[in-house]
Amino acid sequence: MELKEQILIFGLGHIGGSIAKSLCKQGIRVYAEDLSKKTITYAIKNKIIKGTFSDLDLSKPYSVIFSTPPIVTNKLVNENKDLIKNAVLFTETSSSKNKIKKNAFINKIENAILSHPIAGNEGSGIDASDTKLFENKICILSPLKMTSKNSTTKAQKLWESLGSNCIKMDLNSHDKILAATSHLPHVISFSLMRYIEKSSNIKNKVLMGGGLKDFTRISSSDPEMWSDIFDLNKKEILNSIKGFKKELEVMEKNILSSRSKTKNFIAESNKARKKIID
Amino acid sequence: MELKEQILIFGLGHIGGSIAKSLCKQGIRVYAEDLSKKTITYAIKNKIIKGTFSDLDLSKPYSVIFSTPPIVTNKLVNENKDLIKNAVLFTETSSSKNKIKKNAFINKIENAILSHPIAGNEGSGIDASDTKLFENKICILSPLKMTSKNSTTKAQKLWESLGSNCIKMDLNSHDKILAATSHLPHVISFSLMRYIEKSSNIKNKVLMGGGLKDFTRISSSDPEMWSDIFDLNKKEILNSIKGFKKELEVMEKNILSSRSKTKNFIAESNKARKKIID
Repeated sequence: MELKEQILIFGLGHIGGSIAKSLCKQGIRVYAEDLSKKTITYAIKNKIIKGTFSDLDLSKPYSVIFSTPPIVTNKLVNENKDLIKNAVLFTETSSSKNKIKKNAFINKIENAILSHPIAGNEGSGIDASDTKLFENKICILSPLKMTSKNSTTKAQKLWESLGSNCIKMDLNSHDKILAATSHLPHVISFSLMRYIEKSSNIKNKVLMGGGLKDFTRISSSDPEMWSDIFDLNKKEILNSIKGFKKELEVMEKNILSSRSKTKNFIAESNKARKKIID
Repeated sequence: MELKEQILIFGLGHIGGSIAKSLCKQGIRVYAEDLSKKTITYAIKNKIIKGTFSDLDLSKPYSVIFSTPPIVTNKLVNENKDLIKNAVLFTETSSSKNKIKKNAFINKIENAILSHPIAGNEGSGIDASDTKLFENKICILSPLKMTSKNSTTKAQKLWESLGSNCIKMDLNSHDKILAATSHLPHVISFSLMRYIEKSSNIKNKVLMGGGLKDFTRISSSDPEMWSDIFDLNKKEILNSIKGFKKELEVMEKNILSSRSKTKNFIAESNKARKKIID
């Protein structure tokens, strides 16, 4: 990024705050808006941002980043159409993109490129913001059909300046893959936690081993954000649940009928994990 | 434990090896058998055990611990009935106890107490053995109907000397609770890993965020051991899968019909986790 640039960020949570902190450290003039006045005061005091929207020099080039929950992002995009259209780059960081895409099409926003930094962790809020959050992480960039080359290059430079490696991917593939690798595990974790609580009538917390603790960590995720994501990526998530249930049923049949089939299934799982994750 | 005591351990893997290492350090005379000669040589050389079965003084009191996979344990119990009956204590450390219970009844083993140290981690084999593995961990003790008081006290002292806190629980409750809190998460993880590999056709490993890595860690678990566990605790595991699928279907319906219902479901999950785990 170049020092003379201006960035306007909507939403100074864990992601937005980390972007702001890192860009400001690079000397970029970062301005932000957040629902919480306390957050804005904290961010200015701690030199995470230079000021708010009112300090932005609209006569000079600027980029706009939304790091608000997806449904809020859509609302804000509608309310700030002109501001966005006049920007060099409009991007956002949510996990579910379909409605934003539609919105960009309807409003003929030609500088839109959707970004998904695969960098989430358990942190939340600006207190947890971290200049290194995006370092050596993947960022998926999804330009739309009408996105200008200039905006695509700009977005890539932005994420690279934050330390990320960029991958370009069309939005349908993005939504499909994320449904399987991120949204489905959350659906499972929420359902499992409910089942365990209902079924086992467990009074003694300590019975839960370390394995279960790790396995269910994501069931602590924010209801507001995840009900948004599930709503926005409904079709692909429901597809994923269906596919997962089929595998679960294969497993059920194996357990019922044959130890050696169960063993093979597990061995295949071991291999799949090695191939995909290790 | 008292210094004059003798312990015979079958199976010097991660659990058996850790028991041996800790007891030997306390000055107990520990002897062991293992399928692998290399493991025995290593254990003697590294003072994890004093010798093998042939070194055990059968004229003096001894306890027997099985840390072999559950199906192997059953086979070995049958082959060593007299040795076991003459022991002060017979215990084992597997995650699934039903067949061992039956076996103990059939063979009128009155010194049997089933132990389940909730202390597993990703380590495996004697190289990973650790004297502190059981410290501040729960050990579930399940005496059988005919188990003598003496054996129960003995088992409790054994685990306490390893640093564990003991909880007594009847075997049916043990199998039911473990099906929900340990076996079901494994079933899910194996199935999910298979689904992700099949469905998403992912060529780029780096797309998997840290969340998925933690969530699917247990899908790397040993096929031999887990097909045994699933086979031995079949009834309770199938019940758990059924119950979990019901919750998953509630989630499916919520996602399809109502964002606010989805949000409530997730909020309930958050609470359940807090109650049970945090």
